[in-house]
Amino acid sequence: VPRYRLLVEYDGTPFAGWQRQADRPSVQAALEDAAAALTGAQVTVIGAGRTDAGVHASGQVAHLDLPRPFVPERLLGGLNAHLRPWPIAVIEARPAAGGFHARFGAIRRRYRYRILNRRAPPALERAWVWHVPVPLDLALMAEAARRLEGRHDFSSFRAAECQAASPVRTLERLCVQRHGAELWIEAAARSFLHHQVRNIVGTLERIGAGRLPLAGLRAILEARDRAAAGPTAPAAGLILMGVDYPAEPPAAPGR
Amino acid sequence: VPRYRLLVEYDGTPFAGWQRQADRPSVQAALEDAAAALTGAQVTVIGAGRTDAGVHASGQVAHLDLPRPFVPERLLGGLNAHLRPWPIAVIEARPAAGGFHARFGAIRRRYRYRILNRRAPPALERAWVWHVPVPLDLALMAEAARRLEGRHDFSSFRAAECQAASPVRTLERLCVQRHGAELWIEAAARSFLHHQVRNIVGTLERIGAGRLPLAGLRAILEARDRAAAGPTAPAAGLILMGVDYPAEPPAAPGR
Repeated sequence: VPRYRLLVEYDGTPFAGWQRQADRPSVQAALEDAAAALTGAQVTVIGAGRTDAGVHASGQVAHLDLPRPFVPERLLGGLNAHLRPWPIAVIEARPAAGGFHARFGAIRRRYRYRILNRRAPPALERAWVWHVPVPLDLALMAEAARRLEGRHDFSSFRAAECQAASPVRTLERLCVQRHGAELWIEAAARSFLHHQVRNIVGTLERIGAGRLPLAGLRAILEARDRAAAGPTAPAAGLILMGVDYPAEPPAAPGR
Repeated sequence: VPRYRLLVEYDGTPFAGWQRQADRPSVQAALEDAAAALTGAQVTVIGAGRTDAGVHASGQVAHLDLPRPFVPERLLGGLNAHLRPWPIAVIEARPAAGGFHARFGAIRRRYRYRILNRRAPPALERAWVWHVPVPLDLALMAEAARRLEGRHDFSSFRAAECQAASPVRTLERLCVQRHGAELWIEAAARSFLHHQVRNIVGTLERIGAGRLPLAGLRAILEARDRAAAGPTAPAAGLILMGVDYPAEPPAAPGR
């Protein structure tokens, strides 16, 4: 069966998250239903990042196996036609090697979290930012982020429901930068714990607002207790920017 | 009466435009109603750019006269509280000299038009872009834009309803640049004719798509006939980025 790799963009607002649920709309179900409508077969779509309810993506990667080969442009157009009611767009579709696995083959997930840091609420970017009206100290937040980079036990930043075997993760990159009235927190790692980015952002915000001392960050990490860290930042500010894979072997001829 | 200057951001989608209308929501009416609720007086809000139905702003400038002085932070907070149901935010409020007039004092309006130029429809930026799925030739469009810069009779790019006394305008800047999958067309002038930017964009798109020859642009201008140019680009792609004024005299002491 031919395997295809998709690059997918979505507005997470109306979804219970990436993963198919019995009774609520999900991005996975919308894609699977579109693929079923296009091919007449039941199709499973595997995504690289199982984004939570309300979390967006501009660079989600997924794979699916189809009952017969499709010209990639037809696959893209057909999926998008069937996705029309949903704020989901397949922006690239291409044949993938049979061994390609969107989730298990990924070597890096990249997220961005946007905080709108000004007194006035957002009129344009409502669905994409966390509005924090009190002034945040960028330098403090950037230093806190630097201290969280690297390999740590992130138990204090892990949701109770997290099913990962180990709370240890390596944050390859965590940085905070100003973009106009916004602060962008960018995080990259092979994988993340459940709510890890949002829990880190909730803690950075407390530090930036002067409500949590920078010097307390080490104790938060060492506590290995979710209650020690800041609150979970809202889902709307988070977007999965992209997923990286090892360089692919060249596709078989004729595809 | 103390005069205040506002910097206003809005999502134009739900509005019939800036200007107050008898029976449909407008940005001006929402602001005037918020000011009335805050002050208990009837207030007129004058905007620099009378944006059309569906056109957005991130930097609209307006002024209003209040029955009594307000601390600027209170004015900002109070207006935003009363604006809450609407996607409008006052992002700055400050005292203005009595002679300041948002509309007649403006020396430059700056607009951006965003075209999403890729096959897949937008999932994230639906409300803010015009989706053009056929590939556009950026170099051709940029050259066409360059030829429209300067002082011209823009009759061919002027809506039938336009009430300006003269069709002659000076485009100080008109440029086309790629930003990822988007083309941004940026236009600046002291003032614009009705639909001028959208009619120019509709014509640039035709040129970029190869449906109108670049060499035909001069004939379009010389025709002084709306029918000679391309169609009006959709409102959603247009945003008023900012309005410029001559350097203000220093505010009177004590304010």
